[in-house]
Amino acid sequence: VTSERGREPRVTVRADGGRADYPVVLAGGALEWLGELARERLPGVRRWAVISDTTVAPLYAPAARASLEGAGLASSVHTFPAGEKNKTRKSWSILTDELVEQGLGRDGGVVALGGGVVGDLAGFVAATFMRGVPVVQVPTSVVAMVDSAVGGKTGVDTGAGKNLVGSFHPPALVLVDPTTLRTLPPAQRAQGWAEAVKHGAILDEPYLRDLERDVEGLLGADAAVAGAAVARSIELKAGVVGLDEREADVREVLNFGHTLGHALEAESGYELSHGSAVSIGMVLEARLGESVGVTARGSVERLAAVLSRLGLPTTPPDGLDAARVEACTHRDKKVRGGHPRFVLLERIGSVAQEGGWAREVSSEAVLSVLAG
Amino acid sequence: VTSERGREPRVTVRADGGRADYPVVLAGGALEWLGELARERLPGVRRWAVISDTTVAPLYAPAARASLEGAGLASSVHTFPAGEKNKTRKSWSILTDELVEQGLGRDGGVVALGGGVVGDLAGFVAATFMRGVPVVQVPTSVVAMVDSAVGGKTGVDTGAGKNLVGSFHPPALVLVDPTTLRTLPPAQRAQGWAEAVKHGAILDEPYLRDLERDVEGLLGADAAVAGAAVARSIELKAGVVGLDEREADVREVLNFGHTLGHALEAESGYELSHGSAVSIGMVLEARLGESVGVTARGSVERLAAVLSRLGLPTTPPDGLDAARVEACTHRDKKVRGGHPRFVLLERIGSVAQEGGWAREVSSEAVLSVLAG
Repeated sequence: VTSERGREPRVTVRADGGRADYPVVLAGGALEWLGELARERLPGVRRWAVISDTTVAPLYAPAARASLEGAGLASSVHTFPAGEKNKTRKSWSILTDELVEQGLGRDGGVVALGGGVVGDLAGFVAATFMRGVPVVQVPTSVVAMVDSAVGGKTGVDTGAGKNLVGSFHPPALVLVDPTTLRTLPPAQRAQGWAEAVKHGAILDEPYLRDLERDVEGLLGADAAVAGAAVARSIELKAGVVGLDEREADVREVLNFGHTLGHALEAESGYELSHGSAVSIGMVLEARLGESVGVTARGSVERLAAVLSRLGLPTTPPDGLDAARVEACTHRDKKVRGGHPRFVLLERIGSVAQEGGWAREVSSEAVLSVLAG
Repeated sequence: VTSERGREPRVTVRADGGRADYPVVLAGGALEWLGELARERLPGVRRWAVISDTTVAPLYAPAARASLEGAGLASSVHTFPAGEKNKTRKSWSILTDELVEQGLGRDGGVVALGGGVVGDLAGFVAATFMRGVPVVQVPTSVVAMVDSAVGGKTGVDTGAGKNLVGSFHPPALVLVDPTTLRTLPPAQRAQGWAEAVKHGAILDEPYLRDLERDVEGLLGADAAVAGAAVARSIELKAGVVGLDEREADVREVLNFGHTLGHALEAESGYELSHGSAVSIGMVLEARLGESVGVTARGSVERLAAVLSRLGLPTTPPDGLDAARVEACTHRDKKVRGGHPRFVLLERIGSVAQEGGWAREVSSEAVLSVLAG
């Protein structure tokens, strides 16, 4: 995925019914092109606010700013303390006020430089700043690259739950430089690959085979291997979100593993990380599919094997209260009419579609897979 | 504007390039139809949160709720202290948390019941609640009916300025019941008619003539007279925002009187109300147009006369610091490249378009009209 500027791989993501399509540019070293690409894509933006967290800013904000200034673009850097616990309305308020003080106007723009938390929070700042300014997403973690930077979801958490406040705000540009994964702690890399496994499981069996083959390169952040996986995940996700930006219908397939995943995460008081929760959630929801006769036998085993090799958990934490987790699925954002809904695989690489992309399953069946 | 349900006057507003068009239903007594219309328009919404302020809720929330319940729709009422000073991120947070506690989900909806502050704040709650739920705007003040309920602008103020945080979130339905104007204090009615005068001044000379004829009925909240004016203002505004939802280009004409109006309002520390500031702003910007030879002579005189008969001020407050007001226009949200821009009339009923819908004018000319 290293290539010359101007010849780099690109994916175009359809957004807002074709009125807000945006390119994803992916190449080793692409961070150096930020200024040039931002100027090309958004010639009307007169000042850029680079938003990052206290972990990522020292690593990459100087390069981002140098690239913007090299392209003749004014910029400032704004940071917040790293961590999901700071993805709050308070951080959003503080950053917004900093941007106003900095003199950013309607002709300003935001660069979201960092992992998933940065992308969500900075994206929400951009979505609501003077009723919306453009955001360029520059993901530096696996989960942000393969999942959150594409699709336009932005938001913050409240005391009552994750992402309860937010907007759809498609980025104007996504710039992916896989060499930035070298500075990501190995445990966090593994977390992100859970979403890549999901893309293979629901949409593309050959891609899952590639991931199975490349486990070592993925964990080692080999730029070529990681870049190829990121590129395929983005293509797959872009295909789905382009069909349906507002997450009804087809976009639901991306929730595979997430109904139980979110419930496990919440029930652990967010001790369990998102990637681990989704890893367990995928195995349990595949088992749920097998138990109700929808999912081909052997799917659970194959999923659990690759997730386990990636260092991800595949069984619920000890001492889990199955009834509480099951109850928690009834409070999911995806609930309709009070009933939780599950995306079930038909087999690896394909989602069962009978009766919609997600369906209700009896509480008994859910309790049964949770009990193991 | 009184009519039978099913035969009431409607205007369709184009939004989001035709993908989010919404009806404005206008009739005396229409508040009674809220439940029925909400159910027809949004059959998927399972629970409604009626957001209002402490002034309007006691007057109309019971009727709104009764109508929703009469249509078999679950609802709850949420209030915040009346007044622009409460159009804040804090009120937005509190209301959002109440909706979560109330169990509102993605399949919920918001009814914004009240004046402009309620519409902006409740609209922003809806825009950001779980990344967006539908909002039904039920304006009960003149300014909300003729201006803010249509167009999709939502937002809150920050310490640094008005509407610095917000979203475009077109309503799913606007329900206008002009009989609710009877409970509006007369001084506030006059404030709202300033925007109606603006619509006549920029777009429709015969409409301005109607307003001149109907001053007494407008001030007295005669339902037929007020309803006819509201209907015409909505038609005119809908025509403009439908062409261009994102406020570039044509939508700029709606800023007539607002560049100086906002500056006067801010410079007074918001002692001067919005309608009064816009009234003065229109007279001054018409004078600006006359002084640079763009606006037909006599326009100032005619505008000032009708505004004055409506009880609105037409000259800046005593002791005004013209230089500070002029400096303030440079910090306007509409500034591009540091230069404030002004919508200038060609004559009453028409905006001068040469070089765009808004243009830069020399600081000297601006200072001169401010100095009187």
